[in-house]
Amino acid sequence: MRYWLHPSFITANSQSGKQRRRWRQPASKSGRSTDGSRCGGSTSVADWLERVRWNVDGLVPAIAQDAATHRVLTLAWMNREALTKTVKTQLAHYWSRSRAKLWRKGERSGHTQRIREIRMDCDSDAILLIVE
Amino acid sequence: MRYWLHPSFITANSQSGKQRRRWRQPASKSGRSTDGSRCGGSTSVADWLERVRWNVDGLVPAIAQDAATHRVLTLAWMNREALTKTVKTQLAHYWSRSRAKLWRKGERSGHTQRIREIRMDCDSDAILLIVE
Repeated sequence: MRYWLHPSFITANSQSGKQRRRWRQPASKSGRSTDGSRCGGSTSVADWLERVRWNVDGLVPAIAQDAATHRVLTLAWMNREALTKTVKTQLAHYWSRSRAKLWRKGERSGHTQRIREIRMDCDSDAILLIVE
Repeated sequence: MRYWLHPSFITANSQSGKQRRRWRQPASKSGRSTDGSRCGGSTSVADWLERVRWNVDGLVPAIAQDAATHRVLTLAWMNREALTKTVKTQLAHYWSRSRAKLWRKGERSGHTQRIREIRMDCDSDAILLIVE
């Protein structure tokens, strides 16, 4: 079971020209969601990347949600390089399974996804991007 | 690339004690999203189920989004039986990969996910549930 209700998440907003990257604790002090799943905890960005549970192909599914409209825009896949680039550049990067290559969202269309938040679910096997 | 921008979707709301299940056309008459991806088209529920692109394990990822708060709640997996039961009962059913069994969300916790809408992305390889 995978819950976003009280996720640990990294905030990668740009503030005063500097990236703000910090952990927030889950809303529930107990670290449990309303559904009883354990979640949360505080750690470094590097540790957080280490925690991702990549599948057998080295990928993790990443949902992109529009920060303003809250619309779920895409479900795509990331490998470690894509997630690292996404954190570093604050622009969504994915792994194309059909083309077997890294791509930046909008590199052709211009419809980039600028990252406001990156969240990981409790089981560490899915990513949620809040994008602009 | 997977876009929810102008998805085909089935509405499985309950109206006057009867299930309303019909297709809506994508918002764009051209059937293209703002990002240029082709999408949409009208078909029957049975055809829609046939269109799902199950992965090699016979599964498809399903995102659940809260209809009221728009929060992305879960990313879980469905097999054909889970999706069929979800459509039929209007309650989210998933396939547990760890337990290798079908389960209904909330069967233990009571936190069921009642379906308001079921959407499929253009590539037919991901499901979006709008739930209450």
